[in-house]
Amino acid sequence: MGLSKRGLVVQKFGGSSVANPERIKKVAERVVKYRKRGHDVVVVVSALGDTTDELIDLASKVTDDPSEREMDMLISTGEQISCALLAMAIQKLGVPSISFTGAQVGIITDTTHTKARIIDISASDRIKEQLKEGKVVVVAGFQGISIKKEITTLGRGGSDLTAVALAKALGAGICEIYTDVDGVYTADPRIVKDARKLPKISYDEMLELASLGAKVMQARSVEYGKRYDIPIHVRSSFSDAEGTVICKEAKSMEKIDVSGVALQKDEAKITICDVPDKPGIAATIFRELGANNVVIDMIVQNVGRTGTTDVSFTVVSEELAKTIKVAKRVAREIGAGEVIKDESIAKISIVGIGMRSHAGIAARMFNALAARKINIGMISTSEIKISCVINKKYAETALKALHDEFGLKKANKEK
Amino acid sequence: MGLSKRGLVVQKFGGSSVANPERIKKVAERVVKYRKRGHDVVVVVSALGDTTDELIDLASKVTDDPSEREMDMLISTGEQISCALLAMAIQKLGVPSISFTGAQVGIITDTTHTKARIIDISASDRIKEQLKEGKVVVVAGFQGISIKKEITTLGRGGSDLTAVALAKALGAGICEIYTDVDGVYTADPRIVKDARKLPKISYDEMLELASLGAKVMQARSVEYGKRYDIPIHVRSSFSDAEGTVICKEAKSMEKIDVSGVALQKDEAKITICDVPDKPGIAATIFRELGANNVVIDMIVQNVGRTGTTDVSFTVVSEELAKTIKVAKRVAREIGAGEVIKDESIAKISIVGIGMRSHAGIAARMFNALAARKINIGMISTSEIKISCVINKKYAETALKALHDEFGLKKANKEK
Repeated sequence: MGLSKRGLVVQKFGGSSVANPERIKKVAERVVKYRKRGHDVVVVVSALGDTTDELIDLASKVTDDPSEREMDMLISTGEQISCALLAMAIQKLGVPSISFTGAQVGIITDTTHTKARIIDISASDRIKEQLKEGKVVVVAGFQGISIKKEITTLGRGGSDLTAVALAKALGAGICEIYTDVDGVYTADPRIVKDARKLPKISYDEMLELASLGAKVMQARSVEYGKRYDIPIHVRSSFSDAEGTVICKEAKSMEKIDVSGVALQKDEAKITICDVPDKPGIAATIFRELGANNVVIDMIVQNVGRTGTTDVSFTVVSEELAKTIKVAKRVAREIGAGEVIKDESIAKISIVGIGMRSHAGIAARMFNALAARKINIGMISTSEIKISCVINKKYAETALKALHDEFGLKKANKEK
Repeated sequence: MGLSKRGLVVQKFGGSSVANPERIKKVAERVVKYRKRGHDVVVVVSALGDTTDELIDLASKVTDDPSEREMDMLISTGEQISCALLAMAIQKLGVPSISFTGAQVGIITDTTHTKARIIDISASDRIKEQLKEGKVVVVAGFQGISIKKEITTLGRGGSDLTAVALAKALGAGICEIYTDVDGVYTADPRIVKDARKLPKISYDEMLELASLGAKVMQARSVEYGKRYDIPIHVRSSFSDAEGTVICKEAKSMEKIDVSGVALQKDEAKITICDVPDKPGIAATIFRELGANNVVIDMIVQNVGRTGTTDVSFTVVSEELAKTIKVAKRVAREIGAGEVIKDESIAKISIVGIGMRSHAGIAARMFNALAARKINIGMISTSEIKISCVINKKYAETALKALHDEFGLKKANKEK
């Protein structure tokens, strides 16, 4: 038997989709439905609901400082359990199935325990053999085996990465990510009621949205998909509705100015005042902050009074206290003035590959905010993104204003 | 660094010894004590207390007919969890440690899922390397990897087998089995109050006792130890007391007539009456029973009336109903008479390598029973064992009588 005519699909189900035996059976039904339509199916699963937390809890009762190597040994069992159970549930429906650990299908990683990187998939033939025999192959997500033959785990979003990497290794036509959201929206639908689900989005736009805090997918799985051109279909495991396909840019996408707007409220702004305006002074400040593991988001160097300048930057709120401490020390060392913090900020962003070819997008954004009397504190831009820092109290107003301004409802309908 | 001067010891801890984080910490303390005395230590662990049952329960909620291959995939996670936790607990005490799955240390098995046989240990070098680095190596018991690269489990007593096989592969001086009994006794101490713990027992005696229902160790681990001459020290995980060493026969052992007495009350006797006394007739009966998966223990062909004979045999009580059914059909086919069952039997046995060289042991056994007016129904013997079937109501009396007759308290003191 050769591979099926309808092509190979890789489907990944997250922890909430396989939280208990009932849900595992539901997943089995969905998988079998695909198989019966004629697809070859490879399924990647995360650990059952709370399993990983329970294992971490067990470890914490044994030691307060577990080695990362042993943590990987421990928590990788979660996915091994769920993949065996799913294979059983599929068999129960009369469809042959077999489960594999990451090591068994040769998901080779580096040795960075608890957040390893995939280097290669060395035993995809083992999967292909089983597919040829008509089996649904279930692979434990989130785990691999290092070049030193140790069990590793891939860190946050690891099972997504397993799925995308397998799709690449096996030459699958698509990688489906089943999750508890049903796709990517033009804005957070909890805030913007008329936000629309995007049928398609480009890898780059998704990457910008991921960095803006959209929890749909971790950036590194999207990057992997982009590098090898694997379309990723993000959809709900609780419905049959189509979700959002993350894919290569298409001409049609460029017609749209902006694909989505995003809001982040978990950042704070710090300003070091009266910094001597000398070459290399900014480098000194940010080198010191970096050496203390402070991750900076936006940076603005304001034109200040003669001979001095104000340097502002944002960090995530939970790093604020640590950052203030470092910033004050640096300020003293370089002979700068006081250090001011501002926690009442929000960051509002627009994302879209259309910006590359459409002029005036930034101006429209600033105008739309100005029309609502919303002051802009900082601005940063990338090729396909513009972010503005504003006062937190206008965050939702700004989000809706931009969603309207760029006609996101209408744009969505046109697709 | 080379191996330690005090030699290598393999220690196996069962499920009750690692039932929870507190007990795992206790095991870690015990292991570290050995390590600090200068031993190299390899530890084999079973799954935490109820883990295996919980996993089986999960499977039963997904399917009523799980494939054995997937069951192995599922339940092998239990030992992976416990070995990772124990390695963490040892590390917490300041001693370097590393855990391995059965696959990682190359415990190669055949493909008989859920009760695989160990064929080879192909990666013992990986353990030796870690020992040389001063680490305590913790290995997941009960599991291996088949010649087809599938995860397998070894069935009942599997972790003991892992330990003995590793002791052989690594050239360990001793294999310690920590369990919830503290050794092998001259008789069941719950029945015979003055039963004594044996400091030593030969492999063959232990094998006879295992077949007589002593739950201390499964026969196959003892057989493995015997084949490769690995001394096995069975001892309590809850005390520091010495247990019983199962080892090669020593001259001193032969001085003792009988090492232990054993009692089984879970058998029933079946008699097929008036069997035509023709050649091949017994073969017919037992071939039919065997074809129906009835496992026979003792067989006695009584001298009967002219031309016919009575054939009696024992089976475990839970197989009685099935056996009667088969026996009645066979009796009809061969033209025998009625089939009688007797559930009021007990089997009492004496075991000891001294029997080989001491005459009159059997006579002493029969006399001791006769003196208490206990009638003997059936007798069977091996080179180092004599078993008698008696009425169940005399079981305890007989056990104590034989324990006294063969001076087991005294014999024990002499050792």
